[in-house]
Amino acid sequence: MKNFDYSIKTEVYFGKGKIKSLGRILQRYGEKVLLVYGGGSIKKVGLYEKVKSILEENNIECIELGGVDPNPRIESVREGVKLVHENSIDMILPVGGGSTIDCAKAISGASFYDGDPWEIVKNPSKIEKALPIISILTLSATGSEMDPFAVISNMDTNEKLGLGNEILRPVASILDPEYTYSVPKNQTAAGTADIMSHVFEVYFSKTKDAYLQDRMAEGVLKTCIKYGEIAYNEPENYEARANLMWASSLAINGLLSCGKEGTAWSVHPIEHELSAFYDITHGVGLAILTPNWMKFVLNEDTLEKFYEFGVNVWDIDKSLDKKEVANLAIEKTRNYFKKLGIPGKLREIGIGDEKFEIMAEKAVKVGGLKYGYRALNKDDVISIFKASL
Amino acid sequence: MKNFDYSIKTEVYFGKGKIKSLGRILQRYGEKVLLVYGGGSIKKVGLYEKVKSILEENNIECIELGGVDPNPRIESVREGVKLVHENSIDMILPVGGGSTIDCAKAISGASFYDGDPWEIVKNPSKIEKALPIISILTLSATGSEMDPFAVISNMDTNEKLGLGNEILRPVASILDPEYTYSVPKNQTAAGTADIMSHVFEVYFSKTKDAYLQDRMAEGVLKTCIKYGEIAYNEPENYEARANLMWASSLAINGLLSCGKEGTAWSVHPIEHELSAFYDITHGVGLAILTPNWMKFVLNEDTLEKFYEFGVNVWDIDKSLDKKEVANLAIEKTRNYFKKLGIPGKLREIGIGDEKFEIMAEKAVKVGGLKYGYRALNKDDVISIFKASL
Repeated sequence: MKNFDYSIKTEVYFGKGKIKSLGRILQRYGEKVLLVYGGGSIKKVGLYEKVKSILEENNIECIELGGVDPNPRIESVREGVKLVHENSIDMILPVGGGSTIDCAKAISGASFYDGDPWEIVKNPSKIEKALPIISILTLSATGSEMDPFAVISNMDTNEKLGLGNEILRPVASILDPEYTYSVPKNQTAAGTADIMSHVFEVYFSKTKDAYLQDRMAEGVLKTCIKYGEIAYNEPENYEARANLMWASSLAINGLLSCGKEGTAWSVHPIEHELSAFYDITHGVGLAILTPNWMKFVLNEDTLEKFYEFGVNVWDIDKSLDKKEVANLAIEKTRNYFKKLGIPGKLREIGIGDEKFEIMAEKAVKVGGLKYGYRALNKDDVISIFKASL
Repeated sequence: MKNFDYSIKTEVYFGKGKIKSLGRILQRYGEKVLLVYGGGSIKKVGLYEKVKSILEENNIECIELGGVDPNPRIESVREGVKLVHENSIDMILPVGGGSTIDCAKAISGASFYDGDPWEIVKNPSKIEKALPIISILTLSATGSEMDPFAVISNMDTNEKLGLGNEILRPVASILDPEYTYSVPKNQTAAGTADIMSHVFEVYFSKTKDAYLQDRMAEGVLKTCIKYGEIAYNEPENYEARANLMWASSLAINGLLSCGKEGTAWSVHPIEHELSAFYDITHGVGLAILTPNWMKFVLNEDTLEKFYEFGVNVWDIDKSLDKKEVANLAIEKTRNYFKKLGIPGKLREIGIGDEKFEIMAEKAVKVGGLKYGYRALNKDDVISIFKASL
């Protein structure tokens, strides 16, 4: 086990009706809030009204930034920063999924930065101060509600960049599984794939002796596999929504990665190029790429890990040949995503091979793929793209 | 999954050499520290000298309270509170195992309480303020380094009481697995049994749908089973010590219990009576009682859970009859503790049946056993004692 520092300070208020804690939480941080949300689904389900009435009851002034895109744009961040400055905002309240929370994080960090916000996206170590973020989650996927990361897109430059700074971790998050009842089937599926991918990115690690972390990671994966399907078929199954929601937070808050070598991620940076160029749903891109990435990195060195994955996560007969178990596990992963109705090929979502070269080049350059679980160069990424076509 | 609030604010500095962070941590909290330790083993291994020199380098004044007992006494708490008041102490630095940290917690809470410290042990909700605790752990067992609990004994009244208050959670803990190299075999074994028991107390719960938590709990149990034995046989195996140490913290910091009904614990309160009356090692008492408690609570209602336990933790063939799996799992648990050299019977540690009545009565009264996984009355506890004799 590698040395690590662990400090996960987000307070979580989990369960039905937990919105009742909102007023008390906000009052700790100030009197003026920037309410951030997406396309308006929070209005349809009545959450917007609920939040507004709590703000009113607690005498908290509210400025709004709506319309944040699913892959949040730097333009929204710039707009948010402007609102923060014009209104002397004390805290940011994103209500929505990961995109909304990510956008709030970038605004929060950029509010104390003199230059253009895109500069801190490119270099998050420049963030020295940030406004407190209190999130209300409505989609189980990115884990942004309990982690220090955000992903922001710049469509002018075809860049989709991840940034991370401990200071951006929300101070509190309200996680009510019922708010995810209205998430459409395809988003439930994509969210599940995203959670699983977060686990894969650290489960498949060069560190072989973080036994405890690996067993917990397998627990999170089994939870996704069991409840992703149930939530897909029964959107209002509370247990499914609850288990997925808590899995989304634990998958990426640092618990599963601590004690492991800080290797770069692999599938996320490759997918980021897909959605930077084609604006597709992140989880769909991950689900298409993941089994093909697994096939590509399976070799003598990684066999043992894939065998463990097959036996412990997919419950494959451990007496089978290790290679057989490994390949079966990968096929089970692929089939699972299919079962969730996720397209299995890039072509099905309108992506051809015309940009493979440039996307592979950028993924290697920006994503640090040579420091991943298995070092990947441009040709390797093109191979994975081709297998996914 | 039940509603829960999650807030685990202890910073953990984990790994070899992490003591280097101590000066920086302490400087955040003040200039005067109360150093709390036990029988002096920290002097033998050179840790005492190391800590003292760090305090000196950082101009931190140090008052000492040594000689804390393995089942820490209220007398030590009183002495500590006196030292805090006489010396205007800013923070408490326990260096040792759970007993030392527990004693520090009680001192910390009692320092701002006007009455006798035993009163806040009996009624911890009276604690409104506490001194910050920074712990350095030398024994993997109680999880006190990351939890809000403490257990204090009053030998005058034969009482051993647990207290808990969120305010007592250490602000930071240094976990260096190398500090546990010198832990004797029997303490390594007892510590492993203690960690496992913490998991059992919440794993066997009335809540059936905290799937994610149960899978993670199984991960912690598997870690104990694998590495407890290795650490027992190879005291200087870093990986074993590291996995056990992190398991000890995660077993009881709140991660595994959140989302579960707040049922009372079962085996701990029964064991507390044993060690209150006989001053035995806590983990030994737990290891003797646990399989017999399991046998006692196994019935039609609990069968499914014990079957899961057998298949997922002990890797028993899932196609066997469920009752057979359950009983096999219990026997495997019993045999595991034997393998760690822990006595299997109360008689072996000098306990006869002469106090079964009074201990059972107190366990039921103080421990809230009727609100446990399966409600236990006095006769039930006597049955468990008899099976353990």
